[in-house]
Amino acid sequence: PSPAPRKMEGYRRFLALLVSALLLGFVAVVCSLVWVFRYREGLGWDGGAAEFNWHPVLVVTGFVFIQGIAIIVYRLPWTWKCSKLLMKFIHAGLNTIAMILAIVSMVAVFEYHNARNIPNMYSLHSWIGLTAVIFYSLQLFLGFAVFLLPFAPVPLRAALMPIHVYSGLLIFVAVIASALMGITEKLLFSLSAYSESPPEAIFVNCLGLLIVTFGALILWMASRPHWKRPPEESAKVQRPNGGAPEGVEAESTMTDCSNADRSDAGFNSDAARKRNFKLDEAGQRSTM
Amino acid sequence: PSPAPRKMEGYRRFLALLVSALLLGFVAVVCSLVWVFRYREGLGWDGGAAEFNWHPVLVVTGFVFIQGIAIIVYRLPWTWKCSKLLMKFIHAGLNTIAMILAIVSMVAVFEYHNARNIPNMYSLHSWIGLTAVIFYSLQLFLGFAVFLLPFAPVPLRAALMPIHVYSGLLIFVAVIASALMGITEKLLFSLSAYSESPPEAIFVNCLGLLIVTFGALILWMASRPHWKRPPEESAKVQRPNGGAPEGVEAESTMTDCSNADRSDAGFNSDAARKRNFKLDEAGQRSTM
Repeated sequence: PSPAPRKMEGYRRFLALLVSALLLGFVAVVCSLVWVFRYREGLGWDGGAAEFNWHPVLVVTGFVFIQGIAIIVYRLPWTWKCSKLLMKFIHAGLNTIAMILAIVSMVAVFEYHNARNIPNMYSLHSWIGLTAVIFYSLQLFLGFAVFLLPFAPVPLRAALMPIHVYSGLLIFVAVIASALMGITEKLLFSLSAYSESPPEAIFVNCLGLLIVTFGALILWMASRPHWKRPPEESAKVQRPNGGAPEGVEAESTMTDCSNADRSDAGFNSDAARKRNFKLDEAGQRSTM
Repeated sequence: PSPAPRKMEGYRRFLALLVSALLLGFVAVVCSLVWVFRYREGLGWDGGAAEFNWHPVLVVTGFVFIQGIAIIVYRLPWTWKCSKLLMKFIHAGLNTIAMILAIVSMVAVFEYHNARNIPNMYSLHSWIGLTAVIFYSLQLFLGFAVFLLPFAPVPLRAALMPIHVYSGLLIFVAVIASALMGITEKLLFSLSAYSESPPEAIFVNCLGLLIVTFGALILWMASRPHWKRPPEESAKVQRPNGGAPEGVEAESTMTDCSNADRSDAGFNSDAARKRNFKLDEAGQRSTM
């Protein structure tokens, strides 16, 4: 059946926001590269400034852009016909890549500092940045143990899911705040006259605004209840407990999503639309 | 009737978080005062450093602490017997005080800059800080026009409420990120050796962590659906449309909350508890 206009409108809005976020994130990554190649010493792994430059590039690429995508990966409506387990692997995989890039970006700074006898971990940026990396790793480890491995009982998953969602978004926000502090530090260190607004200062300030706007779009998409993945769609085998809280529904062990023979599956399903609409109504009061 | 333990547990947890947040916020304000009086030039209004020092003190007091309280003021269960209109006045009043303090804090910096011929608005901190003040004022003005004045139609209120809540929390986060950038800037400007971690550096870094923890607690309390003010309690006159979305329920014109003769009112009401429990269950999926 052809979808009702109201639903399609919401879907189009989601698509527009998604494309904007992807574009902003991609432009931010490009800007971080332009910054280090056009205004700074480029990239290298020699203990010098070119090694330091991996820090902003990898943070913007991994800890901001890839983490942002990992946060909203369950929201992509064309993945709702895939098994929840596959989506969990993608969510965990993207976050693992982001964690590795974040750790490498820290190693670059430590090696740069050590080569120049600059102390480590003195600034508020470093305190909050390292805290974010530690909590991010903890979050990834706990998420893997509780939500991906099949051992955790359903009540534990249900109890931990709101905390997982909250800490995920909080860490994402802390990473962006830390990136903004890092930009502030780097411009004050490397520009002789930040206050005279040379082109590099304007350019990197704009990179900061790009990152903030990217983060705002991700947080909006992640916090709209009517854009949530419908819980029933996740299990290929329909079970009677369709109303279970998020993250605790019965899992399919199948991980493929190329199976297109379920004509009623995915975001075009009328049943899924109605469920979403009900969630929407309920969520007006309960979101954020 | 004596309340069920599960409810009381949630209430105690809320109280513990609230007391922690108030304590952290209060300590942060005290720390900002200790910073400027013990380590800096104190407070004054002479175009010098003592005038600049109003900036961190007023930002931490108004834009962080008071704004944080304004965000969670609807959550305080002992206010659920007060009319929603009164609570809106308190919410708007606290935000107005915060806005005035934020604007005065900016005036202090501009006057300090101008007296010393330092350019204004060149740093990422200033860009994001000013943007936050502008959006905050806009949010206050729109919130007043739509949710306090009686002219806006119910569908408009319902459509704008999720945006109001999201932008409110986003601005709060942006203010904290901006405060962290400000701390970074100020320590780099005023300490000859931030990297050697003098006592002031450690002290002000800790102020930054206090602010982050305060913000995290406020965001947690503000995003738990089961701690929301029950919609029906807001109207002293019961009306049939009890299930309307937040912010659109029928308003009482009474603003007092000293009226204690409604023995079933407030958070001790069994009906309110049951409604909350249902919201809790629905909200597990739809929060954040």
